[in-house]
Amino acid sequence: MPVSSPYPLVTIAQALQTILAHCPPLAGETVPLTAALNRVLAADILAPMPMPPFPAAAKDGYAVIAADPSRRRRLIGEQMAGHMADVRVEPGTVVRITTGAAIPPGADAVLMVEYTTEQDGWVAIETTVAPGTDIRPVGQDIAAGERILSCGTVLGPAEIGLLAAVGQATVPVYRRPRVAILSTGDELREPGEPLGPGQIYDANRFSLAAAVALAGGLPHPLGIAVDTPEALQAFLAEALADHDVLLTSGGVSMGRLDLLKPILESRGTVHFGRVLMKPGKPVTFATLEGRPVFALPGFPVSALVAFELFVRPALRHMQGDHAWQRPRVPVTLAHDLHHDPERVEYQRARVVLEGDRFVATTTGPQGSGRLLSLVGANALLELPPGNGFLPAGATVTALLLHPPATATASVL
Amino acid sequence: MPVSSPYPLVTIAQALQTILAHCPPLAGETVPLTAALNRVLAADILAPMPMPPFPAAAKDGYAVIAADPSRRRRLIGEQMAGHMADVRVEPGTVVRITTGAAIPPGADAVLMVEYTTEQDGWVAIETTVAPGTDIRPVGQDIAAGERILSCGTVLGPAEIGLLAAVGQATVPVYRRPRVAILSTGDELREPGEPLGPGQIYDANRFSLAAAVALAGGLPHPLGIAVDTPEALQAFLAEALADHDVLLTSGGVSMGRLDLLKPILESRGTVHFGRVLMKPGKPVTFATLEGRPVFALPGFPVSALVAFELFVRPALRHMQGDHAWQRPRVPVTLAHDLHHDPERVEYQRARVVLEGDRFVATTTGPQGSGRLLSLVGANALLELPPGNGFLPAGATVTALLLHPPATATASVL
Repeated sequence: MPVSSPYPLVTIAQALQTILAHCPPLAGETVPLTAALNRVLAADILAPMPMPPFPAAAKDGYAVIAADPSRRRRLIGEQMAGHMADVRVEPGTVVRITTGAAIPPGADAVLMVEYTTEQDGWVAIETTVAPGTDIRPVGQDIAAGERILSCGTVLGPAEIGLLAAVGQATVPVYRRPRVAILSTGDELREPGEPLGPGQIYDANRFSLAAAVALAGGLPHPLGIAVDTPEALQAFLAEALADHDVLLTSGGVSMGRLDLLKPILESRGTVHFGRVLMKPGKPVTFATLEGRPVFALPGFPVSALVAFELFVRPALRHMQGDHAWQRPRVPVTLAHDLHHDPERVEYQRARVVLEGDRFVATTTGPQGSGRLLSLVGANALLELPPGNGFLPAGATVTALLLHPPATATASVL
Repeated sequence: MPVSSPYPLVTIAQALQTILAHCPPLAGETVPLTAALNRVLAADILAPMPMPPFPAAAKDGYAVIAADPSRRRRLIGEQMAGHMADVRVEPGTVVRITTGAAIPPGADAVLMVEYTTEQDGWVAIETTVAPGTDIRPVGQDIAAGERILSCGTVLGPAEIGLLAAVGQATVPVYRRPRVAILSTGDELREPGEPLGPGQIYDANRFSLAAAVALAGGLPHPLGIAVDTPEALQAFLAEALADHDVLLTSGGVSMGRLDLLKPILESRGTVHFGRVLMKPGKPVTFATLEGRPVFALPGFPVSALVAFELFVRPALRHMQGDHAWQRPRVPVTLAHDLHHDPERVEYQRARVVLEGDRFVATTTGPQGSGRLLSLVGANALLELPPGNGFLPAGATVTALLLHPPATATASVL
């Protein structure tokens, strides 16, 4: 009898829905602000204080009474940022002030230094100002109690600066998933070691570890498992002991040595074992003791494409990121393109902004072992089933892996 | 006499040209592949071996002679990936083979397992194959000696996988710049400590450290310098001792306590001290003992915008990245917008893909102290001088800080 897979083909949407249901956000933890870059907020942040916390000078100059008619006024003191002079501005007087310093009592405006002349303790005023000029009132930027950041926000430089500005030395974030990474296959050797006949270097452990790190996970490469049930069982035990996610590559197609699926079946639940896509069809998703296991195909391109489609969304979702999907944009094909007529095919492409539209060029032969097809690619073209041919100029959807390239614009 | 800056206003293009001339790529270093993520290649990489290194099965099945007319053939052995069976395929025989295994001598095609029936040591063949079918010939993906990666390439998961695949355990990359970060100002306190009157928390050291890390630099926050020449001189000595770049914030506008520029003048060369832009006008660039020093304004938004425009390009350039600029894309304004009529203004905005065009909405009041204007922003609108008003629907240029947001497309 012909050998055939016992696993029904599921759609990408079905696969993703199943995965997300089994990959809820992890618990929160508190980290110092200096370790918060790229983490995802696990709570709303309310400002514990207004910003600025006191009426502050927006410019260097003189704190004045706006309605004071005097053209020459006596300099009675200096208010520097971070210091509080014991002085009060009265009609006929000014206080020298620096940007960010608290407005001294009595004053209701700041006169920029450019509009004044100071000599021998007197300041000549060459203009008039409205009350409030160049004063940043209490709470102008942020009111006390205002929600300044929402749960689920990814923390970048601005968000971290904002947290520091309101005095937060630590921040609640979702825990990063610990991801065990295992390559399987008797043919695999470590880079740097000599190759024997029929052997190749393990690429997936390295590429997947990098992909996990970029997705915010903590990659823990476990090594290479040889093709025996005992070796796989041992690695599985190690992986489950101390990780949130297990990621394997190889051992999921239909050869005699594809041992992984039966082991996953025996120890947990295999939710799907084939997906209607190319490359990546044999991608398998299971849960063991409540922990998600992604068994990716062994071909390096298949493994990375399946990672993009399924593992990265899972890792972002586990970190509480609302934007767990890559942006999808319409792109124009620069050339004719043949694709799989029956499965959604993901072709690697370089997307460049030309004028006001995105133009996509594929990265050469799309063989699933050809890692060169991913080098320089900033997008995956998402090609739905059809007649297998798309002409130059057709519009298709692209998942953006990196921002689109643009011609280096001349800076203004 | 009115106080005025001794520094001429330079354009952004002039400023950037000056900076890049003083920030050449750093030396190369060799790192393990596991530490190569996001680093920039410092040399071309030639494949030391072909890929695949031997003729390999592309599918699970049987190694056969394509021209063999026999419908039933004897199974004479098994060639598994990573193993070399001592067997030769002759007419009337087949060898079972798994994906990735070396094609045994004699065979010139692989017949997929799906088209066969195996029973009692014999295999029934239900189809014919052309010679070469499902064999990946030596060098199909990569020829020996082929340039697989170019100097200046940023290493992502695919590039790292490719290096592993050709056996490279280490990789030559440009050194990451060590960046000393200093905040200046008597008014600054550490987050987590209580604030006194007239004091605020230091935000820039945290936001700039995060921005440096995102740009690939190694941030080393030095602390807060009080407003005395002695304190600044001491920090400067520490910074120059062991860093490639010094980044300060505060102390560059025109107040009495803006001490930094004179110190930079006395110890090195100030190349420019004002730029025709908003925010960020007082941004200053100097070299001390050959090392670049960026003195950024103290307002948190001004500091981050100036970082984006000047420091990030410098740090990418020092790392040998050809793509040292952010992508610039045309965007459509969602609303009317007022801007500075005389200086290029950078307004923070959220850019969303609607249909096939980018639509930009600014992030509220654009005050240079209002860090909230950067929260959620994925772009800086680059608004050239003009009449100070742009209507809804106008097209302007945006620097993309993050990929554009898109409506969450329904997955296929």
